[in-house]
Amino acid sequence: MIEHCNRCGSKVDFVTPPGDSLPRHVCSACGHIQYENPRLVVGCVAEWDGRILLCRRAIEPRYGYWTLPAGFMENGESTAQGAIRETHEEAGAKVAIDAPFALISIPHINQVHLFYRGRLESPEYAAGDESLAVALVAPDEIPWGELAFRSVTLCLERYLDDRSAGQFEFHETFLNP
Amino acid sequence: MIEHCNRCGSKVDFVTPPGDSLPRHVCSACGHIQYENPRLVVGCVAEWDGRILLCRRAIEPRYGYWTLPAGFMENGESTAQGAIRETHEEAGAKVAIDAPFALISIPHINQVHLFYRGRLESPEYAAGDESLAVALVAPDEIPWGELAFRSVTLCLERYLDDRSAGQFEFHETFLNP
Repeated sequence: MIEHCNRCGSKVDFVTPPGDSLPRHVCSACGHIQYENPRLVVGCVAEWDGRILLCRRAIEPRYGYWTLPAGFMENGESTAQGAIRETHEEAGAKVAIDAPFALISIPHINQVHLFYRGRLESPEYAAGDESLAVALVAPDEIPWGELAFRSVTLCLERYLDDRSAGQFEFHETFLNP
Repeated sequence: MIEHCNRCGSKVDFVTPPGDSLPRHVCSACGHIQYENPRLVVGCVAEWDGRILLCRRAIEPRYGYWTLPAGFMENGESTAQGAIRETHEEAGAKVAIDAPFALISIPHINQVHLFYRGRLESPEYAAGDESLAVALVAPDEIPWGELAFRSVTLCLERYLDDRSAGQFEFHETFLNP
């Protein structure tokens, strides 16, 4: 919760600035406005020999559950660079990106999840600091009941459907609470 | 520039927190971390009778230049809802979204631009507070030399190419400085 101005440290008011249509955190002293906007989570469905790279989370939320390698996009990178970086950080794997695959808005948590399709450059991987384990799993080994996030479930379902159909599409949708 | 904690108002340090790989703005008193992440700009290529909706900017940056209706995505909305909202705010137009069309990372300004394809529901439009003018322009009337942003130029080029080819693809790329 924003209480203070991050420029001068004074208290903020939550008011609609002139010309704006939504309330913002406006500094009572210097007038600086702190905007809050949705954050992008970028990740990857990475294959090797028909198997898909999954990570078991070593952090909250959803400690112990399985996920696709993904995380918050950083300043100074592209979405694809972010997906490659996260796959390396969380799964110790080098991945080549093929194409964007799924864009999933999650308005109630102010996030947008973007997953790419890609391939491991070699069958090497290792759990990073944020993972308990990393595995290459066959489609019939995916732990559907132990997936960390609905966006991951949705992405994997679409991915396997498209793979079976022999053609990958780009999918865009949203999740409600 | 972040100088103060937005929770307690104390001074921040720019240091790499334990377990992190990048420096962040960390409060020297309460330890709260203020993350900075790229922002999504969402917009629309909206057609009516073969013409495309453009807005002439009434705000900086690029005052007086032409752009597609687009703006920063807000918390609590999906990317498509944001594109519809911005088209209504800037161009006074109601648009039906067909599909995502172009995703353009711009790492040096920490933005990701997402443009949809859509259609006006009726040929009604009007300049909003952030527009000097709004127009439905034929492809040969697009003011290429007076477009506000490179992402808009790129999106319109791809759009007209795809339209000529009779098939719309989803385009993903990035822009360097």
